Amino acid sequence: MDASLTDPAASARGAQLANDFTVSLDADRRMYREDIAGSIAHARMLARQGIIDQPAADSIVGGLRQIETEIATGEFTWKRELEDIHMNVESRLFELIGETAGRLHTGRSRNDQVATDSRLYTARASTAAVQAVRSLQRALLQQAAGHAATVMPGYTHLQRGQPALLAHHLLAYFEMFDRDAVRFAAARAAADVLPLGSGGMSGVPYQLDRESVAAELGFSRISANSMDAVSDRDYMLDFLYSSAACMMHMSRLAEELTIWSSDEFGFVRMSERFTSGSSIMPQKRNPDFAELVRGKTGRVYGSLTSLLTTMKGLPLTYNRDMQEDKPPLFDAADTVLACLDAAAGMVGSAAFAADRMRKAVDESAALATDYADYLVQKGVPFRRAHVVVTQLTRLAQQSGRQLGDLSPDELRQASEHFGQEAPRISVESSITARDLPGGTAPRRVRQALQDAYRRIWIAHTAGEW
Amino acid sequence: MDASLTDPAASARGAQLANDFTVSLDADRRMYREDIAGSIAHARMLARQGIIDQPAADSIVGGLRQIETEIATGEFTWKRELEDIHMNVESRLFELIGETAGRLHTGRSRNDQVATDSRLYTARASTAAVQAVRSLQRALLQQAAGHAATVMPGYTHLQRGQPALLAHHLLAYFEMFDRDAVRFAAARAAADVLPLGSGGMSGVPYQLDRESVAAELGFSRISANSMDAVSDRDYMLDFLYSSAACMMHMSRLAEELTIWSSDEFGFVRMSERFTSGSSIMPQKRNPDFAELVRGKTGRVYGSLTSLLTTMKGLPLTYNRDMQEDKPPLFDAADTVLACLDAAAGMVGSAAFAADRMRKAVDESAALATDYADYLVQKGVPFRRAHVVVTQLTRLAQQSGRQLGDLSPDELRQASEHFGQEAPRISVESSITARDLPGGTAPRRVRQALQDAYRRIWIAHTAGEW
Amino acid sequence: MDASLTDPAASARGAQLANDFTVSLDADRRMYREDIAGSIAHARMLARQGIIDQPAADSIVGGLRQIETEIATGEFTWKRELEDIHMNVESRLFELIGETAGRLHTGRSRNDQVATDSRLYTARASTAAVQAVRSLQRALLQQAAGHAATVMPGYTHLQRGQPALLAHHLLAYFEMFDRDAVRFAAARAAADVLPLGSGGMSGVPYQLDRESVAAELGFSRISANSMDAVSDRDYMLDFLYSSAACMMHMSRLAEELTIWSSDEFGFVRMSERFTSGSSIMPQKRNPDFAELVRGKTGRVYGSLTSLLTTMKGLPLTYNRDMQEDKPPLFDAADTVLACLDAAAGMVGSAAFAADRMRKAVDESAALATDYADYLVQKGVPFRRAHVVVTQLTRLAQQSGRQLGDLSPDELRQASEHFGQEAPRISVESSITARDLPGGTAPRRVRQALQDAYRRIWIAHTAGEW
Amino acid sequence: MDASLTDPAASARGAQLANDFTVSLDADRRMYREDIAGSIAHARMLARQGIIDQPAADSIVGGLRQIETEIATGEFTWKRELEDIHMNVESRLFELIGETAGRLHTGRSRNDQVATDSRLYTARASTAAVQAVRSLQRALLQQAAGHAATVMPGYTHLQRGQPALLAHHLLAYFEMFDRDAVRFAAARAAADVLPLGSGGMSGVPYQLDRESVAAELGFSRISANSMDAVSDRDYMLDFLYSSAACMMHMSRLAEELTIWSSDEFGFVRMSERFTSGSSIMPQKRNPDFAELVRGKTGRVYGSLTSLLTTMKGLPLTYNRDMQEDKPPLFDAADTVLACLDAAAGMVGSAAFAADRMRKAVDESAALATDYADYLVQKGVPFRRAHVVVTQLTRLAQQSGRQLGDLSPDELRQASEHFGQEAPRISVESSITARDLPGGTAPRRVRQALQDAYRRIWIAHTAGEW
Repeated sequence: MDASLTDPAASARGAQLANDFTVSLDADRRMYREDIAGSIAHARMLARQGIIDQPAADSIVGGLRQIETEIATGEFTWKRELEDIHMNVESRLFELIGETAGRLHTGRSRNDQVATDSRLYTARASTAAVQAVRSLQRALLQQAAGHAATVMPGYTHLQRGQPALLAHHLLAYFEMFDRDAVRFAAARAAADVLPLGSGGMSGVPYQLDRESVAAELGFSRISANSMDAVSDRDYMLDFLYSSAACMMHMSRLAEELTIWSSDEFGFVRMSERFTSGSSIMPQKRNPDFAELVRGKTGRVYGSLTSLLTTMKGLPLTYNRDMQEDKPPLFDAADTVLACLDAAAGMVGSAAFAADRMRKAVDESAALATDYADYLVQKGVPFRRAHVVVTQLTRLAQQSGRQLGDLSPDELRQASEHFGQEAPRISVESSITARDLPGGTAPRRVRQALQDAYRRIWIAHTAGEW
Repeated sequence: MDASLTDPAASARGAQLANDFTVSLDADRRMYREDIAGSIAHARMLARQGIIDQPAADSIVGGLRQIETEIATGEFTWKRELEDIHMNVESRLFELIGETAGRLHTGRSRNDQVATDSRLYTARASTAAVQAVRSLQRALLQQAAGHAATVMPGYTHLQRGQPALLAHHLLAYFEMFDRDAVRFAAARAAADVLPLGSGGMSGVPYQLDRESVAAELGFSRISANSMDAVSDRDYMLDFLYSSAACMMHMSRLAEELTIWSSDEFGFVRMSERFTSGSSIMPQKRNPDFAELVRGKTGRVYGSLTSLLTTMKGLPLTYNRDMQEDKPPLFDAADTVLACLDAAAGMVGSAAFAADRMRKAVDESAALATDYADYLVQKGVPFRRAHVVVTQLTRLAQQSGRQLGDLSPDELRQASEHFGQEAPRISVESSITARDLPGGTAPRRVRQALQDAYRRIWIAHTAGEW
Repeated sequence: MDASLTDPAASARGAQLANDFTVSLDADRRMYREDIAGSIAHARMLARQGIIDQPAADSIVGGLRQIETEIATGEFTWKRELEDIHMNVESRLFELIGETAGRLHTGRSRNDQVATDSRLYTARASTAAVQAVRSLQRALLQQAAGHAATVMPGYTHLQRGQPALLAHHLLAYFEMFDRDAVRFAAARAAADVLPLGSGGMSGVPYQLDRESVAAELGFSRISANSMDAVSDRDYMLDFLYSSAACMMHMSRLAEELTIWSSDEFGFVRMSERFTSGSSIMPQKRNPDFAELVRGKTGRVYGSLTSLLTTMKGLPLTYNRDMQEDKPPLFDAADTVLACLDAAAGMVGSAAFAADRMRKAVDESAALATDYADYLVQKGVPFRRAHVVVTQLTRLAQQSGRQLGDLSPDELRQASEHFGQEAPRISVESSITARDLPGGTAPRRVRQALQDAYRRIWIAHTAGEW
Repeated sequence: MDASLTDPAASARGAQLANDFTVSLDADRRMYREDIAGSIAHARMLARQGIIDQPAADSIVGGLRQIETEIATGEFTWKRELEDIHMNVESRLFELIGETAGRLHTGRSRNDQVATDSRLYTARASTAAVQAVRSLQRALLQQAAGHAATVMPGYTHLQRGQPALLAHHLLAYFEMFDRDAVRFAAARAAADVLPLGSGGMSGVPYQLDRESVAAELGFSRISANSMDAVSDRDYMLDFLYSSAACMMHMSRLAEELTIWSSDEFGFVRMSERFTSGSSIMPQKRNPDFAELVRGKTGRVYGSLTSLLTTMKGLPLTYNRDMQEDKPPLFDAADTVLACLDAAAGMVGSAAFAADRMRKAVDESAALATDYADYLVQKGVPFRRAHVVVTQLTRLAQQSGRQLGDLSPDELRQASEHFGQEAPRISVESSITARDLPGGTAPRRVRQALQDAYRRIWIAHTAGEW
């Protein structure tokens, strides 16, 4: 392989590139906390069960704690030739405590060890994702609370439709991200199963106390089948899918922030912290963070595709293909967490232009349906009311007026169901009339806001984040 | 477009091909039951709320019931120029009951109507998927029960490893599919929200009783935000992801059935119902169903990719892009349900070759780790025990023997921890020794079997399927 | 499987649903022309080689021609129980000509037959795609020719940047689609290989004249390896990838048409033929076709994912998984061809609003970089010139003016390199100055237009479409 | 974001994690050679055109050369706060040569600069991929040459079918990879276009000599449209798709090597360099490299999905989303090149077990079709011949014999077309009979081998690798 195609930092490693094929250290060393925690719990249990003696366990635990410190402080010397995190830790443990280190592997295999590490990592990443989603939701709520009276045109097909409250629009995103929190919590629950004790595939011939290891590591359950336990990566897929769905939602938000940042829309002015300027055009703010969030959606979709593909058609039980599980997992976790942070920051610091939004509503023909609904409530069949209002809209349009400018006479000419006075239809009346659960009427939106605060507060007190 | 590239049945439609671009009827007409049920519930509620009068509602309901019958019996005349299921039903309703039909659209928009239909469909498909998963699980349990004493080599890297029970191997799949049932149930819960009442996007200016419509249609909840309600397709994605994960599991099973069907393995003889023969080689059975299940995995992955891509970067609220949601949904539902049926049939009718499996175990060096574990239990450190057994395995190999054929003297020469008699290590003792939760020891597998039966029975009595 | 989940038309087929698993007829019957053409060429060659006698060949050819007519006219009775197009044709041939039909299968297997059909289809679909791309390119050129003087703001980050000609913008799409034509032509070349003569996998024990069959069917080459020939689906993947890239380009065009159709931009008014209206808001035009093109991108990405997944990890040679190749192929071909037609129609009939575009340029600070370049050409270092113009832009902005409104004194105060008179910088001068190959200067754009016409004319005369 | 989820090496960067969102340095610094080469060519041209003076150009070129050396030797201090490779180089250039550094940016924008770097990189990676493919092909040819007489059972459905030569089987892979070479060459051609001179999007107001820059950098063409030039990433997609197709082929090879390495097949013994052992079972060789190649297929499919998704629906011209183009590009390039190396090594060092393959042929009923073809050549219709041989095969099977063991009497009893002596049908005669282009007959395979050597030699002399 042409070494000059690679990262200059990597190519400093030079000749051993050819041997790198099976090395997973670059990816999996970030699981060192999980690896060491799992080993400590295993060693202690071995001693409790009398499989190794207590001094051996103490020595192992002490050595592992020292290694954890070495890694955390950057003193640890990683050896690529040892290929992965597990062998790096094991090798150092032998250096520190000698042959006793070997006892740690009693009743354990690489297969159930790596599964344990991965599950601990996935559970932590899922929890972090729930927390980050909750932060983004709070940012949305805060903006919504500040814009409970801001009127904007609701859009379908990117065409102005009916008037709506900006708060209502922002709460739509609250709902999306709420479902993401549910999915990430489900991914965490899927990861929350201890595989240790499954050995290479069929279990181990030792009387391990699996339940106590699970308890020590914070797992709620132990795996029910050893062959499944070493070949299951569903919990990673659950996390990747949750991330993909969450990125999809963020890509929609990012698209709107980008479109709304255009000079033509001018609905939002993003904070300088989340835009880049053109030095020469000082008023210009490129919505780089929003664009990156939208662009990174591809990255996470790709990670999901990656692991789904890798797992396709693998016979039981463990196959080395599965080593390819961690790069997409880590990349997706990094990406979705960073994007959630960025999105929360962008939303929280955005200045929405209530005046531009209001102007957009006023210039639109958004009240036509309200005129139709007025007639319906006077007893005109729905389809008939539509025809009448279409005529009226044309009439107004031809004379450069809005519907509200038409005289009672003009209205009555189109339908006798209009009375002596023009109906009092305004942007405000239109919004207020959508007064049913889920509607944009101000009192419904206020209720929704309160309900939303309550829901994430309950999640908080339930210990979710 | 070159008409001759298309299906001859389709091209009989001839000239209007150019107009087909926006037509969704071919896909969405399968939601006719859902569409009509939603309309009936809406009409009744309108009458209860006094928004339309009772005779109008009765007339609408009667007309809709007749239409449903017409469709179910094949008498209904579909009109492609009406583009979709909704307009076909509406147009027919006008024919049947005249202008009153127009009142059905009071307080409803196409956007919340199509969302309601889709959710009803997705919920039903999810329930069907749970049921089909449960059938496959029962087939696995039945085979496992019949092979609770059948010994096979457990595989890692498709290399023979430790001995295991075939029942244990089959129960690994039981666990995989159990997670699929959980995911499909979650997809159903995600779909279980009534969007009707959201109007085009912002709600409607009528006092609809959304809760009663939800109850009539079997929804547990109503949507909390109208803008989200018309632009949310998460429930479909949840179903598609659940299907993709389930196909992944089935692709693993199918891969094993294919490999096991080879002359070289000969571990299984598939039923003729699920294989194709070569007329000229009567003993040949091509595992076509297994291959198709494996191949169709791509189809479902593709459907998931499809909808994730379509939804990326869409601004709120409804955009016509979303019309592309149903083809992948329907195709995935059809595929995963058909594959689950096929898999259940294949598993249920497969004849596993216990003798070939046993022979494969006996010819392998699978007991080496048991010898090592024997030494560990005599107090030898794990890594040291490994070295000893490696020597012994080499010795046996060189003289064409198995470990069990070595004499006590030969063993003691390698390690003084061997006693006067050769240790009684056999395939049976190896399996029996894996006696911890999740292990392959016979009594653990029997417990796991009972537990599995109990779990799906509980799911059944809980009304899940 | 719950039959009520399926298409009412399909469920009329009723009870045999369970047997449908291996049926490919619904998909592959659209290859009937290819299947019959392949069979005719094979039969004739068999006679030429003396493998069957001439009367037999004549009888076979006559029967096949009749079948082709029956299918084309809709008289043919398709039998699902025969599973695929090949058996349907074969079975009918036996009905028509009796036992002689059996001779057609001399020296041919289902595996090389289906590969031949698929290659013929893919080649035709590729040619159709090139033609459709060329039509879209011509529509772009026509619009570009009509807007060779229309000024618009060029965008980066959806922010107004430098002025550009609309023709230049449209020609950017011409270039994208030109690359698509290259890719589709490559897919056609990949398909242009005759597999017939490969038998089941290893060749056949007959002296077939493969070259003459290739010539008769219009193939340029014959396959070099029989095992590859029956298990290769690269040409389909090439077509699917070409389609995916082309859809990506169309999704960008569609996104722009959608954004430009918004009230806020107002840069384009789409033809009614490609929009849907709201009956009640007559001025409203929802860009449904553009949205559908954008949305269908997912569908084609999904088809590519589907076949890539299906082919992953298949051992040689033919496996039944490969039957799943045609649904994504056909769906992608239908979709990309329909979208190209729609895009050509949309582009050709769109009315671009030159006045709105010009207004957008005039309101922007797009000339700032031209001021900087003016200073650079006076000898000021680039970075320094930037600083000066940034000051000037701020100054203008603070006083509500554009750069061009600043007095010579104000300019000189910022930099002595400005002269006694304000530099003559205008939107026109800015555009004209970009006078290098590929730039937006009018004479360059005119050249590019002529060059573009020439390029597709050359492609045309080369027989490409 | 929870810092403890990240790589310990990365988290040493600590607090600035929050600012990392827009940083692309980790990915793009590997393009430093391309970035510097592009800048040098640009500076020289600016001087040739009189846009900057020669001493300035000399100073810039000197500074850039020094920077290149600093990076290559690891002395360069990367600054993450400068975000990308371009700013790192630019900033260092200011340190080295002062204000003159600013002149380098005359007539250039970040947008056309990054496009130039990416195209240079993609072209180089494509060339490297062609070379690596050629190496793998040579390894296949070498093995094929050594096994021109080795007989194996050809497989369909992983079931033994007709006998074939191992060389023929290996040459099937030669053909697959030959198509990959064509695709990578096309990706290189797509990348082979100079975008420099496109400025931010609309061209630059300087008389650049783009052709000379192209020539200096080794580009064959210059881009025809500036707006397309800065927003085109097709060449990357072409590379990613080529990589995906190549991985698909390698996954098939890897699947076969894995299955063939099983004890049950035993068709190949992989070199220790490409397997991992179990210390305790010395004869065991896990085909880890083959499994990793198969598993990494997902990674590359994911990268393709990633960039396709990112590019979907982006309006013109440059958007920051596009920064996400490089991670999938680099990851795919690294992966496919490493896998090609691994595959070449595996193939080259594999020991195929001719005896096991032969035994598998002999135990199969693979000659049945040859008996049928024998009858056909005696004038029996194909379908009738099939029926006869099916009877014979059953007869042989029932008496535990092979077809060849049946007596002439038994044969004649089934069909009078058998003569006085049993037909001389053997594995060898079966293979030899497939004597047509692409068939497995020895002389055809020898020709194919020679032809294959000639083809890659021609590619070599044409300068392809």
